[in-house]
Amino acid sequence: LFVAEGIRTIEELLRSPIVLKGVLAGPRARETTRGAELLHALTERLVEVIHLDEAEFASAAETDSPQGVLAIAEVPQRRFDSIAMGPSCRLLILDAIQDPGNVGTILRTAAAMGTEATIALPGTVDLWNAKVVRSAMGAHFHHLAFPSTLDELDAFLSRHGVALWAADAKGEPVESAEPPARLALVVGNEGGGLEPVTRARAERMVALPLEPTIDSLNVAVAAGILLYVLRRK
Amino acid sequence: LFVAEGIRTIEELLRSPIVLKGVLAGPRARETTRGAELLHALTERLVEVIHLDEAEFASAAETDSPQGVLAIAEVPQRRFDSIAMGPSCRLLILDAIQDPGNVGTILRTAAAMGTEATIALPGTVDLWNAKVVRSAMGAHFHHLAFPSTLDELDAFLSRHGVALWAADAKGEPVESAEPPARLALVVGNEGGGLEPVTRARAERMVALPLEPTIDSLNVAVAAGILLYVLRRK
Repeated sequence: LFVAEGIRTIEELLRSPIVLKGVLAGPRARETTRGAELLHALTERLVEVIHLDEAEFASAAETDSPQGVLAIAEVPQRRFDSIAMGPSCRLLILDAIQDPGNVGTILRTAAAMGTEATIALPGTVDLWNAKVVRSAMGAHFHHLAFPSTLDELDAFLSRHGVALWAADAKGEPVESAEPPARLALVVGNEGGGLEPVTRARAERMVALPLEPTIDSLNVAVAAGILLYVLRRK
Repeated sequence: LFVAEGIRTIEELLRSPIVLKGVLAGPRARETTRGAELLHALTERLVEVIHLDEAEFASAAETDSPQGVLAIAEVPQRRFDSIAMGPSCRLLILDAIQDPGNVGTILRTAAAMGTEATIALPGTVDLWNAKVVRSAMGAHFHHLAFPSTLDELDAFLSRHGVALWAADAKGEPVESAEPPARLALVVGNEGGGLEPVTRARAERMVALPLEPTIDSLNVAVAAGILLYVLRRK
């Protein structure tokens, strides 16, 4: 199960195939029209809504300024065979990315760029951590995102002929080569970069041209630019 | 004055033209080779270093895991006439961007992309807020970043023939037009987008193509992709 907070996020959950187990509602949720409409929609969908007073709700909520609504939902069971493989694909691989805000932002970006799936290698924060869910703003309710070992990923990429490119500050400029039809891009940890085994598996290292005074970009910004440059055109 | 925490950030400060007023050092700073070297370099540069015990240092530090070193430095006096205007330029304008983590990440990206300056319009968080400094990882110790009113900005852009383009979800695709030699890009508030006066001033609205299921990107990711696409080639 995972927790999702806030009116907008739960509206998004209701539009997704994810199964809602129940909702906690504080007095604030009923005070706004949008909150009241959401509670009505939840009741119509036969989702159990438990009403709490302000103090009880605050003790359950993780954020400082809760909008008075919090949902418990089932983590969707997604795997490699959930990916609809067409003649072309774009996959994003997260190699030990630890900051939940970065991971949420990356999921939101991957979904926006039409990436087929985001796969989290070991060492990456739980994709359904409450902070990841909050930063993703509902992105992975629709976007396929799931964890995998490097071996499982390797087997999938080989079976489907998907090339693996890695983002690395010492790589060649990303626009120097035409991306293949089926491409997976791996981005590494905020401080340490790629794991040696992931680096060894990648066919090509690509980098963004940066001014010499700056070492690196934030990983979510780097992933966003690379997904954009390498998108299907 | 502003506060900068951590070994790497203060190393970066020492390499910049910014004036250091003094440093607080806890026991942890002396425990690592890099920390001890930094304290030695500060003393050689005649920066006052005050040594504190663990508890005193913790009460002064803002972060949970302080590396035992915190600097107080002068906010550099930067203005429009600090910008070296060549035949081409790229400026980034922040229109009421409120999250300090986003602003710090944006400054780091703008510096990495060779943007000449980042200008903060009213409503944007203080560029020298401790969280902005932390997220920027030293970027604006070198990169020109300063606040301005829209009128001052307008006068500067008109005087130097700099076109103003705005990021907006309803804009035309960013790659549909060639950017002019002198270009300023404005990005708006996380929730509300551009202020009406800024929108009215912009010559062109540009957008990134997104999947219909996703409303928008995180503002730091969007700014990163747009700065990359619109960079000088």
